[in-house]
Amino acid sequence: MSKADRIWTAALIVIGDEILSGRTHDKNIAQLATWLQVQGIRLREVRVVADDMDAIGEAVNILRERNDYCFTTGGIGPTHDDITVDAIAQALDLPVIIHPEARAILEDYYTTRGGLTEARLRMARTPEGAKLIPNRMSGAPGIQIGNVYLMAGVPHITAGMLDALTGMLEGGAPLLAETIGCWIAESEVADMLREIEKAHSKCQIGSYPFYREGKSGANFVIRSTDEAELQSAVDTLCDGLATAGYDFTPGGI
Amino acid sequence: MSKADRIWTAALIVIGDEILSGRTHDKNIAQLATWLQVQGIRLREVRVVADDMDAIGEAVNILRERNDYCFTTGGIGPTHDDITVDAIAQALDLPVIIHPEARAILEDYYTTRGGLTEARLRMARTPEGAKLIPNRMSGAPGIQIGNVYLMAGVPHITAGMLDALTGMLEGGAPLLAETIGCWIAESEVADMLREIEKAHSKCQIGSYPFYREGKSGANFVIRSTDEAELQSAVDTLCDGLATAGYDFTPGGI
Repeated sequence: MSKADRIWTAALIVIGDEILSGRTHDKNIAQLATWLQVQGIRLREVRVVADDMDAIGEAVNILRERNDYCFTTGGIGPTHDDITVDAIAQALDLPVIIHPEARAILEDYYTTRGGLTEARLRMARTPEGAKLIPNRMSGAPGIQIGNVYLMAGVPHITAGMLDALTGMLEGGAPLLAETIGCWIAESEVADMLREIEKAHSKCQIGSYPFYREGKSGANFVIRSTDEAELQSAVDTLCDGLATAGYDFTPGGI
Repeated sequence: MSKADRIWTAALIVIGDEILSGRTHDKNIAQLATWLQVQGIRLREVRVVADDMDAIGEAVNILRERNDYCFTTGGIGPTHDDITVDAIAQALDLPVIIHPEARAILEDYYTTRGGLTEARLRMARTPEGAKLIPNRMSGAPGIQIGNVYLMAGVPHITAGMLDALTGMLEGGAPLLAETIGCWIAESEVADMLREIEKAHSKCQIGSYPFYREGKSGANFVIRSTDEAELQSAVDTLCDGLATAGYDFTPGGI
């Protein structure tokens, strides 16, 4: 495999009882996935785990080993249920320290907001040797230790941290995608899709059915890092759908 | 541990490249989590994996072993990228068969819809020994094999399958939850929360900060299977917030 073909992968660990209870709908999976695509990195797997030292530790040690990057969201705030730093330090066998730079950021941020209390100082705790990920939203920084990136759980704060990381991570060729939407039951074109994928070895074709306005439809998403082959697959699919007498919508429905 | 105290757990495997690419926002995690709470079963962990035989197989074999129930969503449709049945049959070392009852359901469903084609017949394939989960929405049934439940990826179809399973799975005491919302930075009450949790050993307290309308707030969620202790923790928190001069909103903000 040439360097250009190397596929860079990432994993995400979503940490939080609030997701597993159904109370909070996660938005970070889609947010990180979309951001990673632009960096030329593929989100290969996600785990959602409870606020539990061992569950977090197990996930981080497996996922950081088998991916280029391992992200976490959640559990880095000031309250007792924020245990991500402790769990990851334990998993990496590192002590937890008060990071001097993080402490300075928080002191500055809380000067006009009631001062840096003991609880707020918790947000300056990092595994030893960590670097900070700037957070222009709420002061408390994200944390990088090795290939593990600890980010906030609140989506707009996570977004700010991703902005700070944009262009900083090495990736490969971005995965390109084209979508064709069609108001048909996907089963009607299952054979066509299979044959087009077979004939285009560098493309994956996904079929995503839906039911809206009282009728069945599907979006067909073709993905590839090879622009020419992607276009060929799109053209073949559009020709096939037209020949079979189906209307379709480039860009998806 | 008495039988009444036994905690029943479930895991969910969300299968699909469309979630990992960020194209589709998952709704099944929250949907299943909420449904499980009512059945007295806790969602303990979730994994999102690609449309990949080995990734699905690894997840299902680990998660079915260490949970009472293992659910999957996605990948049971008629197209070439629907490989969940094959992956799980392989993981369980079972052959894939055409399930006679599923075939009959599909034949009936497609009588007025263009007939049962080869592609549609794919949706009658199950691991040998499986039972069906009725699907009043789109005909194609879900599949139960051992403690593994294969469900659709499209959320409203999954909802119909969960309806069919309601009351059918053994569970324990439901996890009760009360929420108190407050327009403060959670760091201001971090010590109070920690002490209340310490004093109520059967309760977990989660603190979920947010930022809306230009100001910081947090919802504090107290969870327990013990109704009396839950109420005591709620009362203690409300008293503490009132004493400290904070307005709060029972039920959450």
